Formats: sequence, C-alpha cells, structure tokens
Amino acid sequence: MTSTHAQGKNIEPLEIDDIMSPGVIDAQISPRGTLEMLSQWEVERLRNIEDSKLYELFRRCALAVLNCDDSTDDASEVYARYADFSIEISQRARGIKLILKNAPACAFVDGVIMNGVRDHLFAVLRDIVFMSGDPYALADRGLTPQTDALGHPTTAASDSRPAANLVFNMLRNARLLRPRAMPKLVVCWGGHSISRDEYLYCKSVGYQLGLRGLDICTGCGPGAMKGPMKGATIGHAKQRNRDGRYIGISEPSIIAAESPNPIVNQLVIMPDIEKRLEAFVRVGHGIIVFPGGVGTLEEILFILGTLMDPANKDLVIPLIFTSGASSKGYFQGIDAFLVQTLGEQVRQYYTIIEDEPKAVAIAMREGMSQVTANRRKGRDAYYYNWTLHIPAEMKRHFKVSHESMSALSLSQQLPASELAINLRRAFSGIVAGNVKDFGVQMIRNHGPFKLQGDAEILAAMDVLLQGFVADGRMKLGGKAYNPCYEIGL
Amino acid sequence: MTSTHAQGKNIEPLEIDDIMSPGVIDAQISPRGTLEMLSQWEVERLRNIEDSKLYELFRRCALAVLNCDDSTDDASEVYARYADFSIEISQRARGIKLILKNAPACAFVDGVIMNGVRDHLFAVLRDIVFMSGDPYALADRGLTPQTDALGHPTTAASDSRPAANLVFNMLRNARLLRPRAMPKLVVCWGGHSISRDEYLYCKSVGYQLGLRGLDICTGCGPGAMKGPMKGATIGHAKQRNRDGRYIGISEPSIIAAESPNPIVNQLVIMPDIEKRLEAFVRVGHGIIVFPGGVGTLEEILFILGTLMDPANKDLVIPLIFTSGASSKGYFQGIDAFLVQTLGEQVRQYYTIIEDEPKAVAIAMREGMSQVTANRRKGRDAYYYNWTLHIPAEMKRHFKVSHESMSALSLSQQLPASELAINLRRAFSGIVAGNVKDFGVQMIRNHGPFKLQGDAEILAAMDVLLQGFVADGRMKLGGKAYNPCYEIGL
Amino acid sequence: MTSTHAQGKNIEPLEIDDIMSPGVIDAQISPRGTLEMLSQWEVERLRNIEDSKLYELFRRCALAVLNCDDSTDDASEVYARYADFSIEISQRARGIKLILKNAPACAFVDGVIMNGVRDHLFAVLRDIVFMSGDPYALADRGLTPQTDALGHPTTAASDSRPAANLVFNMLRNARLLRPRAMPKLVVCWGGHSISRDEYLYCKSVGYQLGLRGLDICTGCGPGAMKGPMKGATIGHAKQRNRDGRYIGISEPSIIAAESPNPIVNQLVIMPDIEKRLEAFVRVGHGIIVFPGGVGTLEEILFILGTLMDPANKDLVIPLIFTSGASSKGYFQGIDAFLVQTLGEQVRQYYTIIEDEPKAVAIAMREGMSQVTANRRKGRDAYYYNWTLHIPAEMKRHFKVSHESMSALSLSQQLPASELAINLRRAFSGIVAGNVKDFGVQMIRNHGPFKLQGDAEILAAMDVLLQGFVADGRMKLGGKAYNPCYEIGL
Amino acid sequence: MTSTHAQGKNIEPLEIDDIMSPGVIDAQISPRGTLEMLSQWEVERLRNIEDSKLYELFRRCALAVLNCDDSTDDASEVYARYADFSIEISQRARGIKLILKNAPACAFVDGVIMNGVRDHLFAVLRDIVFMSGDPYALADRGLTPQTDALGHPTTAASDSRPAANLVFNMLRNARLLRPRAMPKLVVCWGGHSISRDEYLYCKSVGYQLGLRGLDICTGCGPGAMKGPMKGATIGHAKQRNRDGRYIGISEPSIIAAESPNPIVNQLVIMPDIEKRLEAFVRVGHGIIVFPGGVGTLEEILFILGTLMDPANKDLVIPLIFTSGASSKGYFQGIDAFLVQTLGEQVRQYYTIIEDEPKAVAIAMREGMSQVTANRRKGRDAYYYNWTLHIPAEMKRHFKVSHESMSALSLSQQLPASELAINLRRAFSGIVAGNVKDFGVQMIRNHGPFKLQGDAEILAAMDVLLQGFVADGRMKLGGKAYNPCYEIGL
Repeated sequence: MTSTHAQGKNIEPLEIDDIMSPGVIDAQISPRGTLEMLSQWEVERLRNIEDSKLYELFRRCALAVLNCDDSTDDASEVYARYADFSIEISQRARGIKLILKNAPACAFVDGVIMNGVRDHLFAVLRDIVFMSGDPYALADRGLTPQTDALGHPTTAASDSRPAANLVFNMLRNARLLRPRAMPKLVVCWGGHSISRDEYLYCKSVGYQLGLRGLDICTGCGPGAMKGPMKGATIGHAKQRNRDGRYIGISEPSIIAAESPNPIVNQLVIMPDIEKRLEAFVRVGHGIIVFPGGVGTLEEILFILGTLMDPANKDLVIPLIFTSGASSKGYFQGIDAFLVQTLGEQVRQYYTIIEDEPKAVAIAMREGMSQVTANRRKGRDAYYYNWTLHIPAEMKRHFKVSHESMSALSLSQQLPASELAINLRRAFSGIVAGNVKDFGVQMIRNHGPFKLQGDAEILAAMDVLLQGFVADGRMKLGGKAYNPCYEIGL
Repeated sequence: MTSTHAQGKNIEPLEIDDIMSPGVIDAQISPRGTLEMLSQWEVERLRNIEDSKLYELFRRCALAVLNCDDSTDDASEVYARYADFSIEISQRARGIKLILKNAPACAFVDGVIMNGVRDHLFAVLRDIVFMSGDPYALADRGLTPQTDALGHPTTAASDSRPAANLVFNMLRNARLLRPRAMPKLVVCWGGHSISRDEYLYCKSVGYQLGLRGLDICTGCGPGAMKGPMKGATIGHAKQRNRDGRYIGISEPSIIAAESPNPIVNQLVIMPDIEKRLEAFVRVGHGIIVFPGGVGTLEEILFILGTLMDPANKDLVIPLIFTSGASSKGYFQGIDAFLVQTLGEQVRQYYTIIEDEPKAVAIAMREGMSQVTANRRKGRDAYYYNWTLHIPAEMKRHFKVSHESMSALSLSQQLPASELAINLRRAFSGIVAGNVKDFGVQMIRNHGPFKLQGDAEILAAMDVLLQGFVADGRMKLGGKAYNPCYEIGL
Repeated sequence: MTSTHAQGKNIEPLEIDDIMSPGVIDAQISPRGTLEMLSQWEVERLRNIEDSKLYELFRRCALAVLNCDDSTDDASEVYARYADFSIEISQRARGIKLILKNAPACAFVDGVIMNGVRDHLFAVLRDIVFMSGDPYALADRGLTPQTDALGHPTTAASDSRPAANLVFNMLRNARLLRPRAMPKLVVCWGGHSISRDEYLYCKSVGYQLGLRGLDICTGCGPGAMKGPMKGATIGHAKQRNRDGRYIGISEPSIIAAESPNPIVNQLVIMPDIEKRLEAFVRVGHGIIVFPGGVGTLEEILFILGTLMDPANKDLVIPLIFTSGASSKGYFQGIDAFLVQTLGEQVRQYYTIIEDEPKAVAIAMREGMSQVTANRRKGRDAYYYNWTLHIPAEMKRHFKVSHESMSALSLSQQLPASELAINLRRAFSGIVAGNVKDFGVQMIRNHGPFKLQGDAEILAAMDVLLQGFVADGRMKLGGKAYNPCYEIGL
Repeated sequence: MTSTHAQGKNIEPLEIDDIMSPGVIDAQISPRGTLEMLSQWEVERLRNIEDSKLYELFRRCALAVLNCDDSTDDASEVYARYADFSIEISQRARGIKLILKNAPACAFVDGVIMNGVRDHLFAVLRDIVFMSGDPYALADRGLTPQTDALGHPTTAASDSRPAANLVFNMLRNARLLRPRAMPKLVVCWGGHSISRDEYLYCKSVGYQLGLRGLDICTGCGPGAMKGPMKGATIGHAKQRNRDGRYIGISEPSIIAAESPNPIVNQLVIMPDIEKRLEAFVRVGHGIIVFPGGVGTLEEILFILGTLMDPANKDLVIPLIFTSGASSKGYFQGIDAFLVQTLGEQVRQYYTIIEDEPKAVAIAMREGMSQVTANRRKGRDAYYYNWTLHIPAEMKRHFKVSHESMSALSLSQQLPASELAINLRRAFSGIVAGNVKDFGVQMIRNHGPFKLQGDAEILAAMDVLLQGFVADGRMKLGGKAYNPCYEIGL
C-alpha cells in the first residue's frame, strides 16, 4: 500500500460564497440574541490560566468557526496559519463581548462579522462553557478539571447514563430540542471531499426536501454537509418557510477540518465523535447518506450497528443511501462491503435510491409519517429519540492510538453487532489519522496505524479504502494521499 | 402583649376576579411554550418514591399555584382543604404532561385551565427540577438527596459563592434575565393584607409606572403584590406595550400563603427566603415599598442592611417608600424605627413620597437613568446586579426555631450592619410563625417565639408590631390575631 | 314635561386613569405602525383651504381623540375649551407627521403622547382621508367635494349598494376584518352615563368574556363602552392572550361626546350613525346590551328592526340584555316597551339575563358555536356578515331636524318593521339633541323637538324617557337635564 | 436584415429548480395571509360575463404565475398549451378560494401548490381587482368598463396626475411601501435570455448585495431577473436576515413571457409597461443594469431620459452598469450608443464596473447613504420617490402598432430628452414584437415594424441590435431569431 494521487473526479470548485478574503481582522463581537449569558464564575473558569487546556479548546473551535470560507481540511495548517489569533471574553452592561485579535478576514463583510458566523462563535462559547461544568463532558479529552463547576471532586463515572444525560443536556441547553414540532428533521451524511457533480446532486436532494417542508441536519462542513442545506434554503424560500432549520453538529477535533458553513442556523459542538454521532440519531427523524469516505463509513457503521441491536427491533428510522448519476455504483460497493462483514440481514435497514432526488424526498416524507406513528405508539418524544438503544460499547469513547488501533479485533467470529462496533472504531481511527490534529501528529511521529484481523474482512476494507483513495475522497485539495494506515493482509 | 382584634381599615374586598369557584377538578395539562423539557432522569428523580420529600415540595407548590383565587393566607388550611390533590408527570410524544387529580376548580374556566396558571405550574416544575439537580439548592430545606443529579455524593458547601451562583443559575434557567433590555424593572414590596384604599393606591402607582414603560416585580401574592401589576397592565395596554413584564418571585414555604396572581407572566420559585430576597435585588433596578407588615419590614431591613455595607457605596439603587392618603404617617413610623435602631445615616438610602402616584413614577423613571449610567460606569450588567455586595450573613439561610429566635442578638452594641441582619431574622421568624406552615406548627406546639435584647430596640419593635396588629397587617381575614412572638421587655 | 334633576344613582366616579391633566401641549407625532401612508394628493386634499369643512371634520375628530380623559359628554364645551387647537400634516422622509398645537395635555405622559392615543389619531386621519375619496361617505354630511378623489364629478347615488360597499371598504381599509379568525367578537352596547355599580357589572361581564377568549367591540366612549374592555383586558392577561381586540366604532358627530378610551386598540370612524350601526352588526358575532339611555334604545331598535325582517329568518345572532343587581328591573321596562310597540313576537330575538356575568359569558360562547355553524352553512364569511339583510330605510341616513322629527309617523297602523325604523329615528334625534353639537345648537335655537303619533306609543315612550331622566341616563355630569323633546300626548 | 441563428454563448441551462413537471392539476387554493379580502361586488365584477376581457386578463396573469418553471418566453405558446385552464373565485366562511382547473403541474409539490406561487396568485387577484376599480388603470388596455367601481361613468383623463396617483395607490395597496425602512432596495435590470456565465455573475452580485443587507427588485422573470435574487437569498441566509425582500414588478402583457420566480416574495402587476417602469424608479433606491437585450435598452432609456430632465438635477439615484468577465465590452457598446444618440453629457448619470461583484455591492451601499441624505434634505419619503420628475411623455402609454412605430421621430434635431423618449418607444415596440402576445400577432399578420429616422441614429441602433441577435439576447430557446423590425437605413 503506497501513496496515491487523487484522480478521476474534479473536486467541487469554489462557489461564489467561497471566495477567500485573505488577511486578518481585530474586532469586538456582541451576541445578537439573548441566549448567551454567563455568570462571573463561568467567565473566570474559561479565563483561568491554569485551565489553559480549556481555553485553548475554545480558541481553536472559535478559530475554526471564523475560518468559514476555507478550502483546506488540514486542521494543523489552519492553526499554524492563524497562530496569532486570540479571543477574550469581556463583561459589559448589556452582556458579554468577545474581543478578537488577528481573526480570519473571511468571516467579515466590509469589516463587520457575518451574523451567521457571530452566532456560531457564541454557540461555541455556550457549549464549551457547558462542557466545562460537566465532568463527563471533558473526561475523555484529558481536560477534566480537578473540581467541577460546583466544586465537587470529579471522578469519571463508568456507566453510560450520565453520558446520555449529557447528550440530552447539551442539546437542550443549545435549544435544539423543540417539543411541539412534528418529525421533520433529516440527517444528511456524506463526504466533505466530493466532486462537483456529487455536490450538485446533494443540493438537488436538499431542494426537494426543502420543498416538502423538511429540515436538514449535517456535520456542517463542506461537500455533502453543505449541499443539502443550500438546496433546502431555496426550497424553503419558495415555500415561504422562514423557519427552515439547518442544524450543524460538530466536535472540537473535527471542526477545524470541517468549518461550519454560515448557512447553518443552529450549531452545537459535542465533546467527542461518539456523542456527536449519538446526537445525530437522537434528534434526527430520518437519515440520508451520500457518497463519502472513511467518515461516512464510520457513520454508516454507527447507525447499522445500533439498528441491529435487538432492543431496537420495533423502532422506525428511515435510512436511505443515495448517489447521483456520476457516482453510480458507489453504494453497490458499500452494500457489498456491509453484506460481506455484517451479513445479509443488514440489508433490511437501508434503501438504495440512485439518481432520483424527488423519489428520495418523497420516500423521506413518507418515512416521517411512519416515524410519527411509531413515536406516538411508543410514547416516545418527537424531539428526542429516548427509546433508541445505543449499545454501551458503541457509545464509549474510542481513544485513537497506535495501540488501540492494532488491538481492534476484526474477526468474523464476533457477533455482527460487536464487529460493527470495532469496524466503526477502525474507520474512526483513520479519520483521525487523516484530518484530526492529534491524529495527524501521531502518524507523523510514529508512522501509519496497523490494522489486523481476518483476511476476508481486511480484504474487503482494502478494496473499499483503495476506492476512496482513487476517488479523492480521503482529503481535500487533490494532493497525493499518503495513507495513515496499513492493512495487515 | 395579648391577642388583638384587627380593626380600623376595611380589608381589601374581593374583586371581580376573586370570585371563588368551589369544588375540584381532574385534568391533564400540557405546557404551552417550548421551555419545559425534561430528561427521563429528571422525571424519574421527581417520581422517585424514596425522594418523597422532593415530590411533596412539588405537590405543595403546584397546589398553591392552582389555588389562585383564594383569599386565605393560611397555608396549612389550604393543604388540609385539598388533601386529596395529586399531580403526576407523564412523558408524551410532544413533551410532558401533568396529570392533576382533585385540583382547585378556581384555576379553571369552564373546565379548562387558565393559561396564566398553566404557565405557573410548569414554572414550578422547572424550578423544582432545577433545584433537585443542585445540592446547594435543597441543603437547607432538609431535602438534600444523597447524590446529586450527576450521581456525586452531595456535601453541603459552606462558602457563599455557589449559592450566589445558584441564584443566577436559577434566574437564567427561568429565562428571567434579558441581556439587551435597558433598566426598567421596578420591585414592589408591601403587605399582602392591606386595606381597599391602600390597594387602590398601589394600583394607581402601578398604572403610572406602566404608562412610563416600567415593568413590575413582586412577591406575587395579593395586596401590594397584586395592585401594581393590575395598574401596570392598564398602563401598558394604553401604551400598546405588549411586552410588559409582571414578574413574581416566590419560595416554597410562602407560596401557599401568597398564591401567585395569574397576571404574573414570569414566575420563579427560589429555594428559600434569603435567595428570594437576593433575586429581587439582583434583577430589580429600583424598589418601591408600600405599607405592609412584618414581611415588609424584613424586606426593608434586607435592602438597607445591604446598602449600608461600605462595598456598595458607589452603587445606585433607587428606593422609594410610598403610601396613599389613607395610610398617611405609616412611613413616618417606619422611618422612626429605622433611625432608632440603625441610626440617622440610614435615611440617605430612601425617599418617602406620600400620596403622589405620578411623582413616584417620575422619580423612579429618573432613577432608571441613573442606574443605567451607574451600571455602564461600573461595567456591570443591566440584567443582573453583579456588583452589589450582599453581606454573607445576610445571605445565609436563617433556620427559624425557638432557639434561633431567642438566640438573636438585638443589641445596640452591634455595628448597624450586623444589627440589621439580626433584625431581619427576627422579622423573618415572625413571618414564619404567622403564615408559613412549619412556623405555624412550631407556635402551635411550643408557644410564641421569645425575642430578647436591648430595651430600646425591643420597645421600638413593640410599637411597630402593635401598630401592625392594630391595622390588621399581620394576617388576612380580619380574624383576631394571636401573636406568635413575645418581646422580652 | 319639564327639566328634571338627575337623581338616585351615584354616577361612575373617575378611576385612576381618569385623572385630568389640565393645560395644553404642542407636539409632533409620527405614526408607530406602517399603515398610515398618504399620497401627496391626499395630503393636499385635506390641506386644501377651500375644502375647509373636511379639514374641520378632521380637526374635531382629532381633538376628540386627544381629549381622552375627559368626563364631559358635551361636544360644544370641548370644542370651545380647545378653540385654539390646530393640527397639520407634514410629509417627511420616513412618512408623515402630525403637528399639533394646543392639544389637550391629558393625552400625554410626561410630554410624550400615549401610544394608544397616537394610534387613534392616525386612525382618524386614515378614515377621514378614505371618506374624502368616496362621494357616498360625505354626501350626507354636506361635505361632498365637487369632485371625488379621482376627479370625477360627484353625484350622490340613491341606491344602498355603494353605501354598503362603503361600510365594507372602510372596515377593510382599517384592517378590521380578519379572514382566518373564528367568530369571537362581542358587540357591547349600553349607556355612557351609568352608575358605578352598573360600570362594575359591565367590567365583570367583560372579564368573564375575556377569560373565554372573546373580543370586545363597543362605541368606544365611557360607561358601558369602557367597562367590558377593561374587564376583558384583565381576562385576556390571565389567559396570556396578547391578541385581545378592543374595537371602537365611532362617528364624527358623536366622537367628541364619547372620546375613545386609549385601551381601544382598533378605532374606526364611520361617516354617520347609520353606517356605524351597520358596521357593528356586520363585524360582530353576538351582541350584549347593558342598561343605557336613548342611544341604547336606538341600538336595540336597529338590531330588532333588522332581525324582524323575514329575509333574516335563518340567521343566528345571539342577543343578550343583561344588568347587574343594582339595575334589576331595567330590562323588564325595555321588554315591556318593545312588546307594547313591536308586539309579542319581538321577544324571540333576545334573552334577558340578570346579574350573572358568568352565565352571560357562557351563553355568548355557546352562541359563537351556533354562529360558526350558521355562517358555514350559509357560506357566509366569518369576518363580515354579508347575508344579513338590513332594510334600506333602516340604513338610510336620517337627517335630524325639527321638521323631520315631527314628521315621523309613530303609528300602530304601521307594520312592526316600519315602526321600528321610525322609533329608531325618534331616539336618534333625541341623542342628537342631547349630545351632538349640531343637535344641541338646534335645540338652543328652536326649542325642543316635537314628537307626534299614537297615544299608546307616545305614552310608552314617555314612561321610558322619564325613567332615563330619573336615573341620570341622559347626560353625564349630574347636572339638571333639560329635555330636548316634547311628546305630544 | 435577415433571420439569424443565435450563436456564441451557451444559454443558461436549467437549474435544479427548473425541472419541468408535465401535466395539469385541479386544485382549490386559499390565501395564506389575511390580505386578500374581496367584497361581494368586487367578486361579481370579475365574474361578470359581459366584462369578459377583465376576467380573461386575470386568467392569463394567473396562468403565467402558475407556469413558474417554464423555459419559454413565448406567451402565445403558453396560452395555447393551457387553453383548458380555468380559474374561478368562490366565497367561503373563512375568506375566498380560487378554484383551478387544468393548471400547470409545475406549480405544485406532490399535488399541493407551492406557497410562493399561491402568494403570487392572490397578488394577481389583488391587483386586477384594484385596477378594475380605477378607470385610469384599464383605459389604455381597452378594458375600461362603462362605469367604475363606484358606478360613475368613466371618462379617460388626460393629465398625468391621476396616473401617478395610480402607481402610488397600487403599490400602497400591495403593501410594497414601508414607511419606517431605510433606503436599501436595489432595482436590478437586465436580460431574460442570458448565458450561464452571465447568470452566475448576476447571482454573485446579488450575493454581495445580500451580504450587505440590500434587497432586490426586478422584473421577476428568468435570467438577470432571477440571478440577483438567488444570490441575495444565500447572502441574507448567512446574515440571518429573515426579512429579505425579493420584489417582482410585472405587467399583464409581459408576465406570460417572464413568469415570476417563486422566490419573489412580493409581486405586483402594474397595468402597463410605463407604469411598471415608473414603479421601479419610485420604489427603488438604486439601479444596477446587467447585460440584456431590447427590454434592457428600454429600461436604460427610461431612467436616463428621466435623469436628464433638469427638474431632477439635485436628485441622487445610483446607477451602475456591470457585466462579468464573459461579457466584457458589452457596456462599452451600450455606452457608445448612448453617447452617439444622447450626447457626451449622458455619461454623468452612470458608472460602469466590470467583473467586480464586491465593488458593485460596496458602491451601491455607499450610494444608499447618499440617497438617504438626499431624501432627508429634500424632505422626500424613503419609501417613494415623490420628488423625481418623470416627463409626462415618458409616462404616457405608448400604444405599439405598425403606424405608431413608423411615426416615431428618431432625429438628432430633437432635444436629447425627447429623443430618449422616442428611442425608448422604439425599443418598447421591439420587445412587444418579440415576446408580447399582441405584438407577436401583429408581426405575424403584418410583417416587421419599420423604423425611420436619421441615418446615424439608425446605424447605431442597427449595430446594437445585430449584436443582441448574435448574442442570443432577443429570445430564449436558442432558436433562429426572426427580427420583428426593419431599420430603414
């Protein structure tokens, strides 16, 4: 396995709103709404020098949000380019202000910050402050303070209840949950590095969803995370739907590689990838998957591993895999991989629709009726899927390292549900090695991760991954891709 | 000191909206807004049988809120009358529901709950749930669960920081704080048991405040707590002010004696009287005191003891004592008492205006400009008076008992600020003995509290208290008043 | 028949919001909303010196609206007191402004106009401008310009179609009609000069209506026109109903005697009394009549004469006569008069409910369901009662004069429906003689009107009118009443 | 001069929202808002069989609006394709309904009409009804009823005052005028038949305008009328601007050729092209012209002929001509033509900016500040440019015919301002011959229009027109263009 040049498809070109404004800007930013209100203690906690890890976390997320027009997915490059960037919190009569120094100019229009970006900045602040008061939120990030917000000694808990609690609490605190609303939130997954044609297809599906009153939730980066939102914006405008929701769910270690698009009108930063994935499936009412790379595979394995759990047998979650004419066959490949590894029965959980945006939207709208009936029958809330049972191991944070990666058991002896969990971890590790700052550094220092397991599984993975490399799905920018993994065939 | 018949003034008669509907009703209630969203764990915590004290707290507050048209201030009578009342929380697809059994019929119009009362019910739920997740909130109520919301062992903290944090957190959670708004919230204090003429005077002042765009915050019971809100409602209507705020701040042990009027459009239940008093002075921008009884004195001493603290010397808080023609001289008596006990310098903190509703409103409006300038200069928030220093002892919860009452040092040897703290406690104890359920039972079982101290102070208190008794300010209903205290002259 | 002193009942005293501020004020007033936009030609038309009658009409209505706290019902007194008052229209970048000189100070709070009054001023402007463009609107007022808004020669039309068109057009132009809303508008009629107890009863009924989500429409003066609105304001506040409607429908010759209360949040000035009465019955969904004087009788005869028309036999209009304990028997007297003059069958059109605010409100709410069903069945709009047939003679403007009054045929030979029309005219004339400026001057110059007809009818009228005089229902102020009519018994 | 094939540029391809749904649909449509309320007489007037011209006008405009996804600009083709289409008005309890038969399916999503189209339908109804009540509105369309809405005999007036009145009255009736708003409405003119690159350039300019809070007003068809709105929609979304305005101003004879895009959120149908052009310059605060064909020239001549009038010398109206890289030189050609015909001084009224979307937007934003100052200084309204003097001949409706076209004096002897008027008429006639139903039929029956005049002027026109033909700017669809005119060189 050697380095390969991305080939084939032309990568999605910059659109009118992607023109990069070079340079940096200093500015003072007030929140627009009335949401972001901090107590003196919360401000102090963030400012606290000893707690510098927490501040750095905030600074990096803020930078990612400001760097909204960037076309790189290399977090360390972003951090390096804006090494001088600083952000400070100041208390004023009408509320707090953020004092920015050397912020990326692309977030500003004629020197004034875009309202979309401003909202994202305060969303980041809100979520970091919230995490900082919850010992479970930061434990796995090595950021646990000695005492929590209330001064208790913080001892990491081992059961999953508080963690689930945390997902709910963070989403509620972010006002993402809306009790009265009927099911209509569609989670769209797919690659950040896709071709122009694939991008237009995502947009087209988003447009059809928007015409039908459906809202969009994505990981809020470029590519398949942006297209559906743009399409839905036009669909909503034609339907005079002023309350269209474009929800972005990110996490600190990915946000710099996938800067939220300013169209996103509700942004949440979850503490880690597992809680981010849980958030998607708790608030979404249906899921559409577009072509993507390893991150997309991680998402697919998360939802399939969960749906295969017997506890979820009565649950309805519409799951559609769809691609445009230009990527015909992509999901045949995915389908083959899933059947090879998880068995034939996995097919009952998803539908593949090729090159039919309208059919996808109609199927999803009908899925929503079924979800509504299912939730009512199960006395479950529309706004949060309490009933869904996510296996504890699926939720547990997987700490990526060379050791943990090579220790993963990828054996056909395992029950399908356990194998799904380990496969997800494997792909999660490759995402980290590709684009997350800490992962990229691990690879730079210690070489590629080594994956081991049954030959058949490894072969299936190899086929899949080589395809991703060939299609340029691993990284943005069209540069040669240097794999961060070795498959021990 | 013997029992005395209330005389003189005619007690405020029932108004059109006070007609009591007898009987009870069963009903299922959904929240109107989108605020009240509970996690499964929060619902469980309230339902938990072992935590029955918490549930009972919730049930009693809910009952108080439903009993909105009542004319009694006797909590135990209310609890006894509706002994069968029950309330249950149920999770549904669109959010939670409250299942009521044997609820007071006066909260309903043709079998449908009044929206004002419905909002209050869910405000109670919101606040009790919030307290239940905070060890500091319930510690003093003997309700501390073994572990907190996150499963930590709960050890009562002794410093005041988390408690202040709690006041802020509860108000923020109740969405009472509005960062963008200019200072315009007037706290109105005064008696719940006042004459018709005094009531009309309060209403008239409220009307003039309302015409000038000022909002009202009171303890949300009858009398001086209701009058200003009703007047302001008409003033706001004439000014087409649809966003008028009528904020009620209560606490579990007083709410049954002072059921919130349904006009109150934001209700908060603070854990105890000290946090309730702190909440008033943190969110209010100015204070008007109308004639009242011991509770009113407690309030006056709380704010004066605080303002006299040297740390607050640069702070601006407009404080006006005002009464109508029919109560002329009332504040002369209060003034005399304050000077006798706290010294001449206390006078610099308040202004007395007699029988001039318009003058009161104009003075308050001008005070608001000064508050605005003062906050801006001090970089303090408009929405929360961070800078105000409340002495730690003033904030500390005073546990009323025969022992604690007779142990109070009421000596002129004490610095004025310390004496103010103890005097407040003394009056707080008398309030409890008059109308709070646990206090009334203490008196029934063990006789009146005994107060001791310097003769001069005790004499001043005696004059004041006898005046209150004579004016019928101690209790509603015009029945003979049986003092719950003895002054050890 | 001689002059009599008003006796008996104590006249409704001034309330907190009726405190008169003496003096006058100069001010420039901008509209608050976006409604009031005039073309240059419309402004010119009003400014036009030759068209001074139109300007004077505007000036007088504006003065009436500004004189919002007045306790007189004597229009000429009001005009005399503010003889210096002037109002001018000025075009500005952001819209028009009104320049006031010597305006009554009572409309202002600390020098700033009350928003309620401001809205009324611009409502007056809107309606006068609209009338000025419609030849039918002003024809009967002797104000017909030579050419209409479009430059056509204006020839008074004789058929009633354009007039009805005019009622609809004016109400639509005033945005009073709301297509989506369900039937819930209750017209309240009754005296402007009533006792305190009667006032409180009106308020109490209004409160019960407000609690049930019903809106109020009145003639927008004092007494029975104000009470229901105040009560409903409190009822709506308790139900968190921020969209409560308090509609006032007036006309130029009565407005000075019955200044709109600033609570009125939609004001319309119809061209004359007949169109005002038509407006009430077209937009209202039910009618409640409280005790009153001759104006109230005029209203009763208008609706009964209309309902008795065979064309309306399938129509549902709930009509309730109600009075409080203090006026027990009042409606027995009215009932007797109606049966004597219009016959027994008139009773089927109304219900009398005594001293039961809640029962009145419940009956009205049930009436609304019937109206809803009836309109749907008849394919009639909820927002405008197209189907109601108002007899042409009932709609035709009755020009009050000594000649027209004595020419009225009040004979039992006439069919009941025709007699109702003439009786209404007779009472209409007495209203004019009592409080309308032109009528008061007629009486001053030529003595009382003389009414002639069948002895039995005249006797019945005499009994009724003497009762009104005795009860102080003819005029405000408690002064001796000098009858403006003679009954030719 | 012979027929020529459109060449060169690739015509703007269909976008995701242009996918045509074939077939027809029957449906009943209610209005969404509360605006559209008709009196019985207004409904009757439209239904009236004798007034069939008026109904046909309504039917055709409604059809044009429903045909929202069409890619033809051939009105007669549209009318022929949907010959069976009918529309009826029905009165219901909650308001009126439109009953559609055989309506174009493209206006519907899964059988339900798009809200954007629904709003347009009721806007058409509102405007046709309004015109039908105004004799001036329909006079020139040969639609004048014998009597107007009020029954007056209708005699066409000759002065321009009522016509201007009509423009204002129609815009006010359509609620297009917003008194409080600051100047920010940018009129965008340009071709309906443009290349993909030109379209993207328009969109890019619209995006930059949207980011700066500016609103868009166009003729509401495809091409340069759609691009800026789509771009602004994304710009507004990123700025969280939910009140972005996308105003479309059309007229009955062009609407079928330029169906409004459903993004348009305020649509007005003016009676004819002259009033449409007047509406643009009265409500717009600045104008941007993109490349286009004869219609664009007509627009340019209208504004320049007006600005050159000495009465407007103190007026500020920012006027920018701009084109993208792919159309470089286009405005050099226009500039040359303008200088040749109207003289060098015409250049002072416009600025040419090439290929700089951001610069265009910044210049326009700065222009807005100047407009604001200019209006304030001139005491002119922001919402309607009263001060602008449009020469009477420019406003007068030009009735296109072979006679009127060949009678046009195109002589350099004429003052520039008169020549501008006649040139505008010449281009207006060519637009009619190209795409308006009546014009196309004239040409079909009688051959091309013949234009005569000074050789130099005609030569300049010839160069320009041949360029338009070569660039495919005359007609959509890429078919051979058959000129509707002959230039008598």
